[in-house]
Amino acid sequence: MRILETILYAEDLVAAQRFYTDVLGLEVISFDPNRDLFLRLEDSVLILFKASKTIVNDAGVPPHGMTGIGHVAFRANADELESWKDKLEAVGVPIIQERTWGNGSRSIYFNDPAGNVLEFAEPHLWFR
Amino acid sequence: MRILETILYAEDLVAAQRFYTDVLGLEVISFDPNRDLFLRLEDSVLILFKASKTIVNDAGVPPHGMTGIGHVAFRANADELESWKDKLEAVGVPIIQERTWGNGSRSIYFNDPAGNVLEFAEPHLWFR
Repeated sequence: MRILETILYAEDLVAAQRFYTDVLGLEVISFDPNRDLFLRLEDSVLILFKASKTIVNDAGVPPHGMTGIGHVAFRANADELESWKDKLEAVGVPIIQERTWGNGSRSIYFNDPAGNVLEFAEPHLWFR
Repeated sequence: MRILETILYAEDLVAAQRFYTDVLGLEVISFDPNRDLFLRLEDSVLILFKASKTIVNDAGVPPHGMTGIGHVAFRANADELESWKDKLEAVGVPIIQERTWGNGSRSIYFNDPAGNVLEFAEPHLWFR
């Protein structure tokens, strides 16, 4: 089993689009500022839905929608983790926490403009 | 960029644990019925957090938490999609929608016990 679509929610999709492309470097598949932002990852898709729209969506698919603070972790090896720390600091995105887990793997946490908690984590947190 | 952790929320994690292991066949990494359910996928982790607990989590990591109806899509090729349809029907999980997209890829939708909208979708929905 593998994930094809991971979802986050944001009210301001214009700010989200700027952040996920300019800061995280993701490619936009499609973008409707009043509805949804589809972003291409290596082998899956990250979608940000406008929270106030999705629960009453008119796309004809089963509606969903969440409010609150979401969370997603991206893979990063040790070198990538250091690069991301430098890059986030350079563009003024605060690292809200750095953590070393019991098995030695490291994570850094930061927020997207909607307040979602994003994480870069070394994959050996879960996989040998 | 690749996802390492995808998150859903559920209030009844015991029901979630039963569904995600018995019906979807996922392997439990760790399970605390009052807090979180970690499930292993092929190259990532799906975590269900107890919605009412996570926003005030005591794990020392930046708190998050959402309420509402979440959404995740899993990859399934054409054969797997048919197998999942049969399996879900056999165990009494209703397929709430079947859909063929513009590029010919197909999706089926169903709910987990918390009401989250789950989907099996052919990967060529997004990837050639």
